[in-house]
Amino acid sequence: MPCPFHYRDCESPMSELFKALERAPLDTRESTARLLDAVAWNDAGLIPAIAQQHDSGEVLMMAWMNREALEETLRSGRVCYWSRSRGKLWRKGESSGQQQHLKAAALDCDGDTLLLQVDQTGPACHTGRRHCFYVSLDADQGRVDSEPLIDPDTLYGVGKA
Amino acid sequence: MPCPFHYRDCESPMSELFKALERAPLDTRESTARLLDAVAWNDAGLIPAIAQQHDSGEVLMMAWMNREALEETLRSGRVCYWSRSRGKLWRKGESSGQQQHLKAAALDCDGDTLLLQVDQTGPACHTGRRHCFYVSLDADQGRVDSEPLIDPDTLYGVGKA
Repeated sequence: MPCPFHYRDCESPMSELFKALERAPLDTRESTARLLDAVAWNDAGLIPAIAQQHDSGEVLMMAWMNREALEETLRSGRVCYWSRSRGKLWRKGESSGQQQHLKAAALDCDGDTLLLQVDQTGPACHTGRRHCFYVSLDADQGRVDSEPLIDPDTLYGVGKA
Repeated sequence: MPCPFHYRDCESPMSELFKALERAPLDTRESTARLLDAVAWNDAGLIPAIAQQHDSGEVLMMAWMNREALEETLRSGRVCYWSRSRGKLWRKGESSGQQQHLKAAALDCDGDTLLLQVDQTGPACHTGRRHCFYVSLDADQGRVDSEPLIDPDTLYGVGKA
């Protein structure tokens, strides 16, 4: 259905709740349960979550969360995604030890994206790099612009029991 | 298909090209055309693009791009998304005047997300706020944590010819 607001980009009509919050006074509160009811989960029940290092501002990675992953993250303070490949909760760092501790979370205006402020232990990227965005791109070419901090074989204990 | 790398989260098997880049030396180059052939566009031909203010590090918004939008962005230096609601290219700022000038772009390790460093004129959010992530969230409640810089009716000329 086309969005009634020509200047917005929503895949589906935005919920009444998020629409109401647009003009709500600063410091307006709403229960997390009601907000999560109104989130625009995609067909697979997921929303994208951007992880940003809370102090440096570096964008580390983007992954996906379902409601259960987000609720666990908010409750535990340790970031938990939904692994689309494994089809299960993915507690960041459970294989690599490189955890993300949650500092703050926010939903966007459409209720369809999360921004997480985290404190990342070591590399966030499975390649051993600090962050995942290491292929810089211009109109003509891309370029590998950073190196692993840690060899991924060490990170994931390849060859170990 | 389950990802062969238990520690990664890819919806589909990662392209050979992005896999090869993981261990490629710093400064390895590849043509943008080949990289875009290998990008993990979703079923709708889109990837998520995160826009970050290049100097402050503030994450402004997330939207979607198809190949045409990304190529135009890289070529023109003005950020162009794909509007899922309108089903057409969305040159950021064409309605509001609040443009995004591209400073740098990067693909992530899986080739399924973009990070754009931009210089944003005024508010990035359709609500008139500087950025879109204004509903802060904890386990119990959410809270409107910022106010519009500009009234959205002014921004989009509601009531004007």
